[in-house]
Amino acid sequence: MEGRRAGKTKTRIKVIEGGVARSRLDAVATEEPLEIRLSGAGFSGRVAVTMRTPGSDYELAAGFLFSEGLITSLDQVAEIGYCVDRDIAQDQQYNVVTVDLRPHLAVDASLVNRQFGMTSACGVCGKESLDQIERRGISPVPPGPLITPELLYSLPEKLRNAQGIFDATGGLHAAGLFTAEGKLLALREDVGRHNAVDKLIGWALLQGKLPLDDQIVMVSGRTSFEIAQKCAAAGVPILCAVSAPSSLAIDLTKRFKMTLIGFLRGDRLNVYAGAERIVVGESSPEPIPGTPTWH
Amino acid sequence: MEGRRAGKTKTRIKVIEGGVARSRLDAVATEEPLEIRLSGAGFSGRVAVTMRTPGSDYELAAGFLFSEGLITSLDQVAEIGYCVDRDIAQDQQYNVVTVDLRPHLAVDASLVNRQFGMTSACGVCGKESLDQIERRGISPVPPGPLITPELLYSLPEKLRNAQGIFDATGGLHAAGLFTAEGKLLALREDVGRHNAVDKLIGWALLQGKLPLDDQIVMVSGRTSFEIAQKCAAAGVPILCAVSAPSSLAIDLTKRFKMTLIGFLRGDRLNVYAGAERIVVGESSPEPIPGTPTWH
Repeated sequence: MEGRRAGKTKTRIKVIEGGVARSRLDAVATEEPLEIRLSGAGFSGRVAVTMRTPGSDYELAAGFLFSEGLITSLDQVAEIGYCVDRDIAQDQQYNVVTVDLRPHLAVDASLVNRQFGMTSACGVCGKESLDQIERRGISPVPPGPLITPELLYSLPEKLRNAQGIFDATGGLHAAGLFTAEGKLLALREDVGRHNAVDKLIGWALLQGKLPLDDQIVMVSGRTSFEIAQKCAAAGVPILCAVSAPSSLAIDLTKRFKMTLIGFLRGDRLNVYAGAERIVVGESSPEPIPGTPTWH
Repeated sequence: MEGRRAGKTKTRIKVIEGGVARSRLDAVATEEPLEIRLSGAGFSGRVAVTMRTPGSDYELAAGFLFSEGLITSLDQVAEIGYCVDRDIAQDQQYNVVTVDLRPHLAVDASLVNRQFGMTSACGVCGKESLDQIERRGISPVPPGPLITPELLYSLPEKLRNAQGIFDATGGLHAAGLFTAEGKLLALREDVGRHNAVDKLIGWALLQGKLPLDDQIVMVSGRTSFEIAQKCAAAGVPILCAVSAPSSLAIDLTKRFKMTLIGFLRGDRLNVYAGAERIVVGESSPEPIPGTPTWH
């Protein structure tokens, strides 16, 4: 039963290269929550929810429990299986894996709490994770601002130039906040990319600048569900990344009416959501006199 | 008081380029745990421990609490400060930040548990995090195997060639398991780099192949504390990465007698720990007859 969920999700994107836009069908990495449950003497229940790419789910559950110290050898495991709870919708059953210990083997419940590797997501499917954000009172970002591809092309270099620590260690993720005119307002770095975004949004919060609804956030790496969620909470309309987004980051930005840009490099970018904020073709030549124009 | 901890840590490394080794002082990104505490009506205590690069810690705490929905505006915050608990050693006090809500403002304790963003680390300093791993019964990796730089130089291409999904999406982290002869045994990918390593080690566990004490793990990204910890638990002697390690990943691999390689690209690599497993100079020319040799 393993690996029946695809690691890739097809999505329609807009590629804007040298200021010219075209539409294309693209593949992105699938991201869905996996709930890991452990069952043994003294404890039976959820130990973690992690955002993962479906596939090798039994291995992920076993590897997680092993590296967290909750199991120490294969002998302890009686069975690993997907959820068979009929109360859970069928497409969600492959997002819950239960590891059953051999009879009478106890779970060290103190380790479960102490080492809880949980993300902010608790749903057992991506859609549920989005619903939860909505229930927290986070609403879609208002329309605007409008920006050009040329402005977006300029952001990666501005971010890199400002990354003082990055030059020395090569080991840090960066998150930058820009105005709609492309001016860098703040930059934060961290070994963890979630932390870099938390620092940036925390800065804005402490400065009384939230919501960031006229601004652009640019991150140095990839865009996952969690990065997109943090930006949605702060009301960020435009989220850009040097690398690829996950499927769930795309779903989230579409739901909250954000613009999501990926592979922003040189004079090229991919638009995964909210293309209406990108103004293409303003630099196109004036119509030749006598040529008909359409309105 | 903010930012008094450095974002960089100096460390002595060995650079092996074209099979020739030299020693150099290098800077790596500092990684230390930050405990975030929240205090208000109905709840007072730890809400998360995250591995972060010191600096902008108040912003990180505020941004984390905001993006998790535990605070929704700056008005709710009375004060943010580092720990002043005299029971905690002084160098650890800058690893604990407490956010005090305004009088009578309640904390939604259900959100604290539901959205616990905790990593597997619970200590309030890096050394304590290493001690905890030791207390879990994880011991130093035995000596061996011995490998050449040339073998290591060949790994990134083997990993990339095997990354079927990566070619299509550009969005996945990879972790590969190699024999000491450089043969790829298994490859796992995921949107989360921790998950890729958990899948790989889970595969080995389910195949009855643990401990991995004659093998090499190579990851496509950076090496953090958590990645190194998972490999230590599985008894991996050699951990390689395309990018940089954090300071705490270096400390951990030194403590558990592992070899840590970073910036493995082309015919160049950096050795951050355990250089004794790398055999340099085997391809050096035979001594010229009559030339004295030293033993």
